[in-house]
Amino acid sequence: MSKGIRIGVLGASGYTGSDLVRLALAHPAMEIAALTANSQAGKAMAEVFPQFGFVDLPGLTTIEEADWSMVDAVFCGLPHGTTQEIAKSVLAEHPGIKFIDMSADFRLRDPDVYRTWYGHEHLAMDLQAEAVYGLTEHYRTAIRDARLVACPGCYPTATLLSLIPLVAAGLVDASDIVVDAKSGVTGAGRSLKQNILFSEAGEGLSPYSVGKHRHAPEIEQEVSRVAGENVTVSFTPHLIPMSRGELCTSYLRMTGSTTADDLRAAFVDAYRDEPFVHVAPAGVLPQTQNVRGSNHCQIGVVADRAPGRAIVISVIDNLVKGSAGQAVQNFNLMYGIEETTGLMQQALFP
Amino acid sequence: MSKGIRIGVLGASGYTGSDLVRLALAHPAMEIAALTANSQAGKAMAEVFPQFGFVDLPGLTTIEEADWSMVDAVFCGLPHGTTQEIAKSVLAEHPGIKFIDMSADFRLRDPDVYRTWYGHEHLAMDLQAEAVYGLTEHYRTAIRDARLVACPGCYPTATLLSLIPLVAAGLVDASDIVVDAKSGVTGAGRSLKQNILFSEAGEGLSPYSVGKHRHAPEIEQEVSRVAGENVTVSFTPHLIPMSRGELCTSYLRMTGSTTADDLRAAFVDAYRDEPFVHVAPAGVLPQTQNVRGSNHCQIGVVADRAPGRAIVISVIDNLVKGSAGQAVQNFNLMYGIEETTGLMQQALFP
Amino acid sequence: MSKGIRIGVLGASGYTGSDLVRLALAHPAMEIAALTANSQAGKAMAEVFPQFGFVDLPGLTTIEEADWSMVDAVFCGLPHGTTQEIAKSVLAEHPGIKFIDMSADFRLRDPDVYRTWYGHEHLAMDLQAEAVYGLTEHYRTAIRDARLVACPGCYPTATLLSLIPLVAAGLVDASDIVVDAKSGVTGAGRSLKQNILFSEAGEGLSPYSVGKHRHAPEIEQEVSRVAGENVTVSFTPHLIPMSRGELCTSYLRMTGSTTADDLRAAFVDAYRDEPFVHVAPAGVLPQTQNVRGSNHCQIGVVADRAPGRAIVISVIDNLVKGSAGQAVQNFNLMYGIEETTGLMQQALFP
Amino acid sequence: MSKGIRIGVLGASGYTGSDLVRLALAHPAMEIAALTANSQAGKAMAEVFPQFGFVDLPGLTTIEEADWSMVDAVFCGLPHGTTQEIAKSVLAEHPGIKFIDMSADFRLRDPDVYRTWYGHEHLAMDLQAEAVYGLTEHYRTAIRDARLVACPGCYPTATLLSLIPLVAAGLVDASDIVVDAKSGVTGAGRSLKQNILFSEAGEGLSPYSVGKHRHAPEIEQEVSRVAGENVTVSFTPHLIPMSRGELCTSYLRMTGSTTADDLRAAFVDAYRDEPFVHVAPAGVLPQTQNVRGSNHCQIGVVADRAPGRAIVISVIDNLVKGSAGQAVQNFNLMYGIEETTGLMQQALFP
Repeated sequence: MSKGIRIGVLGASGYTGSDLVRLALAHPAMEIAALTANSQAGKAMAEVFPQFGFVDLPGLTTIEEADWSMVDAVFCGLPHGTTQEIAKSVLAEHPGIKFIDMSADFRLRDPDVYRTWYGHEHLAMDLQAEAVYGLTEHYRTAIRDARLVACPGCYPTATLLSLIPLVAAGLVDASDIVVDAKSGVTGAGRSLKQNILFSEAGEGLSPYSVGKHRHAPEIEQEVSRVAGENVTVSFTPHLIPMSRGELCTSYLRMTGSTTADDLRAAFVDAYRDEPFVHVAPAGVLPQTQNVRGSNHCQIGVVADRAPGRAIVISVIDNLVKGSAGQAVQNFNLMYGIEETTGLMQQALFP
Repeated sequence: MSKGIRIGVLGASGYTGSDLVRLALAHPAMEIAALTANSQAGKAMAEVFPQFGFVDLPGLTTIEEADWSMVDAVFCGLPHGTTQEIAKSVLAEHPGIKFIDMSADFRLRDPDVYRTWYGHEHLAMDLQAEAVYGLTEHYRTAIRDARLVACPGCYPTATLLSLIPLVAAGLVDASDIVVDAKSGVTGAGRSLKQNILFSEAGEGLSPYSVGKHRHAPEIEQEVSRVAGENVTVSFTPHLIPMSRGELCTSYLRMTGSTTADDLRAAFVDAYRDEPFVHVAPAGVLPQTQNVRGSNHCQIGVVADRAPGRAIVISVIDNLVKGSAGQAVQNFNLMYGIEETTGLMQQALFP
Repeated sequence: MSKGIRIGVLGASGYTGSDLVRLALAHPAMEIAALTANSQAGKAMAEVFPQFGFVDLPGLTTIEEADWSMVDAVFCGLPHGTTQEIAKSVLAEHPGIKFIDMSADFRLRDPDVYRTWYGHEHLAMDLQAEAVYGLTEHYRTAIRDARLVACPGCYPTATLLSLIPLVAAGLVDASDIVVDAKSGVTGAGRSLKQNILFSEAGEGLSPYSVGKHRHAPEIEQEVSRVAGENVTVSFTPHLIPMSRGELCTSYLRMTGSTTADDLRAAFVDAYRDEPFVHVAPAGVLPQTQNVRGSNHCQIGVVADRAPGRAIVISVIDNLVKGSAGQAVQNFNLMYGIEETTGLMQQALFP
Repeated sequence: MSKGIRIGVLGASGYTGSDLVRLALAHPAMEIAALTANSQAGKAMAEVFPQFGFVDLPGLTTIEEADWSMVDAVFCGLPHGTTQEIAKSVLAEHPGIKFIDMSADFRLRDPDVYRTWYGHEHLAMDLQAEAVYGLTEHYRTAIRDARLVACPGCYPTATLLSLIPLVAAGLVDASDIVVDAKSGVTGAGRSLKQNILFSEAGEGLSPYSVGKHRHAPEIEQEVSRVAGENVTVSFTPHLIPMSRGELCTSYLRMTGSTTADDLRAAFVDAYRDEPFVHVAPAGVLPQTQNVRGSNHCQIGVVADRAPGRAIVISVIDNLVKGSAGQAVQNFNLMYGIEETTGLMQQALFP
């Protein structure tokens, strides 16, 4: 029996896709109608993710085999570079479908920036023009009316939620932002790479993509937008021996006589009515444990000992608020459903 | 606004208590009316478990301060030995309260066995007489009518679900059962002990309480009941460097010409209609990842190379099906609510 | 400047090979003359294992490129099935080389058993005839004079050290042995497999190869030898979320009026003068933390509550005493060097 | 039989003390003569750290019971605030003893700074005057002649090794240094605290002591010394779910037209002959896995995308180069022994 809106998940054999399935199963208005995974087509979802062995799910098919006429909304968890053509094809044939993209393909508005960072021409610039950046709290109105939403990367989500209100209010110097980012290993996806083997990533800590991570231009695009000028952000990610969770520590120079309390007040003001963004009281430090498995983001502010500086810390679950959860939040908006529907799970701690 | 049944949680500052709160917040018929934690009384729950900083909860009080007239049902996550007198007192004054005990205090029916293993006289033998053992799948009818339910320990839950159908059907030799049990570190609770520090328990594996774990007599009580004779079970627990999850590997000698397929058929038969107990298909091995954070139990059967022997593997989340989840399942039964209410979360994997 | 005996390491890009290199660098009589790794040939060792970036090492070559005339002893860490022909070829051309094999290729004496478990004919049965099983404590005399030593698998090492003295003395029933084995993830090697990704193996526990692990026939070969009859051992391995370490819990039925203390006395007797095998005092339980990174094995004995049964627990570091360390120990014997040379590192704990 | 220099270890029941014992056992010139641990006095070391069950060690005594006339050198791993009076007393009675302090008690030269950060008056300012700061690579000459060496904290070691050459050469702006530091859980010691329980610290990431960590003034003391002016450093530590290892990411603003290559060249120049400090080649990023269990420090430099900025990454094992290893290195200097003696172990990876 249908629960209502029929969804398809592209790339259901990856972590982003499987977390979307996890959330969809708990969502009262979603019916999972199609699951694709080209490399695993023909298998049951439970063969690929055995935790789904206790529920009924459609079998995995190739993208080509999927019947899009039976689908109302598509969530896409494909690797970057592959989504553009698929979105173009699906939306051309089924213009009524709503497309919620969790990949990187429609996040960068400037085709030159896209080409520079992804190494090839953008393949669907017409769709790019209509794509809405899916950082829910800052694009809510546009998301409501969108057909194509480009959900932000996990690092941009955690970073931008903690930078936009400050930069927009002119409380910090947008030209002097240092973001030290730390992510759990699921951020690297499920593909087989040596550095994410248990025996390699465990009991150790590695910086990676220093000075060249693809989430940097995305962060800069959005910070620049609110700063009113092009800014470069110093952004350095590190791989942490945990599966889920992301913490971004931002080192900021405050303008004028701004204090850390002013920053906190700006956050409280910006996020007062938000169900998923929470400002930690003074003296409380966010930690990833607080948000594991949930759609929450927590932001904390500390005055640095170095005069005029502040430290802002934000945490999310990279697979939830950083991907599948934010996608569901946007889906709710796009369908006029209560925004928190299916997303109020508490963090799983311990 | 009330959601309905008002619950109190005794021992809300422990892991069992906090997981009960997590589940209660997702339960449509529960209203959290009281939270006690004597050592933390006066604090907000969010000070003790910061992941609850995003929801409204009653403050922590002492047991004495709690107003039981405002509570319909009590979940008790206190350490063993302390529950008996509290239950006696609460139920004497408020005989209409339903008491769902997650501690060990009412699990053993024989006062001599209790004294031997817990080192003191049982303090509420009259209540013990009415207590129903809360292994839902095997005591469902009695639980429905019970006022006091003694939820099983985590190891007994995982072990008994995988032994009772086999012993009851005479398919295995009840006098030759070896259970090698492995648990995540939350099984040791939140109290400060050196062996559960991260730097001690991490990257290592330790057997503990070998030949003397308090869950052994509980397992034996229930196996003996279905065997129709007193049996001793060889039970050996190990501490695994993970937070949640429990896996019991049972080494069994089959009777007559019984085969591993017969064992699997017996499980399928016993658990066909169960929402939370799942028999793995032949060739599929359960793993704790499949049930993390969920109320599911998965059981697998493999024929051993040693003739006449079989290996049965069962997995649960020790804090959910092994404690708070099973408690909620029993609560649902006791209140005539659909048994799966509030418990259908998928496992959090990865 | 030469330290003395020139060694070559086949398969230096795997964990067994790299741990051999680690130990060789600390060995006063070894000079590392050749490192092969066919898939990584042409690279510096530090590109493959960056922890070796601070020492001088030969570059990685293919096996074909290695100059065996410059090598006195070969340690082989290749995958099973590939060593037989290479050993044959190397020893045919350089009969003076001593060959210390850490692979599985020369462990099973019976070609039928080999074929059954490894799926192909043994390719060097003449060499098999001269191969000495490298379980140092029980084959010391033969190892001293051997040219080809087949070091045991990690599970057989931990298991046999804790079974041979008991079976040999007739203290336990050799036909009723259950071994529940647990290993860290390095036991699976460095090859890219989904189940050993950090996000898959972390925070979880999985049995694997139940009823069909290739170390079972090796254990049975050696237990049968001392039992004087063919025995089948129930052997079940589990993957534990830690990198190094192995713990085997053996469930034994004692003969006659044998007690657990008798078992302990037999161990003390057997291993009194051994530098690397240690019997835990009564009441002390071995744990893998005690041996991490070291060549030590610790064995503990506990009387089971089930009458006539005992539990024997043994721990090793799977890469050291379970592989590279035992190989070095055998090397020392083969060259008449003090057996403990280069192997007296303490465990790295925490 | 004596190996030579008789050492005593104060605080042998802590992680710093036990790692000192581990290194001492491998040191050819050290004889362990005394081990103190007031709270564990009367026990064998193996009862407190079971990995030492395979070697002979003196029993644990109270400080008062130790016979200092039998000791040549003292390593002190006591908590801060307790060492000053003990050092004063021991050195007063036995002025010939060399005292190598791994605690924080003699690191800060300015008594006002000490009082501000540690909350009480310094209790041995006369000794403070003769104490040499034990950052080996930058105080080598003074350490050779010292009687009392104050080994740096773990964070200062990792940070200062990567800052001093740059600040000393004027290549970076000393007034604009941001250090984002990450440490394994052993950095918090072995005392029982809730936040370092396995189930709390595992699978999570927490900033701590933000803006107020006691290692900040120590870093500032030494950076100011080479900068020639008082500087404030922005220093923020994070707790990482691993036992050992520390990684500091320093965000630096370069002066004039300095490039990242210039920074790397300065490091190469400064550390060319150092056995334990290694500069990563361009393109290679340090990770804690490279130094686990070893005395090595690795430093890498990357040009930031933000113009004029560079990122410097340094890694150490917090218990070795960050504590016990550096202490042994200083001991070697103080006794005129080859500086690398007993310290050339390779990292234990995986």
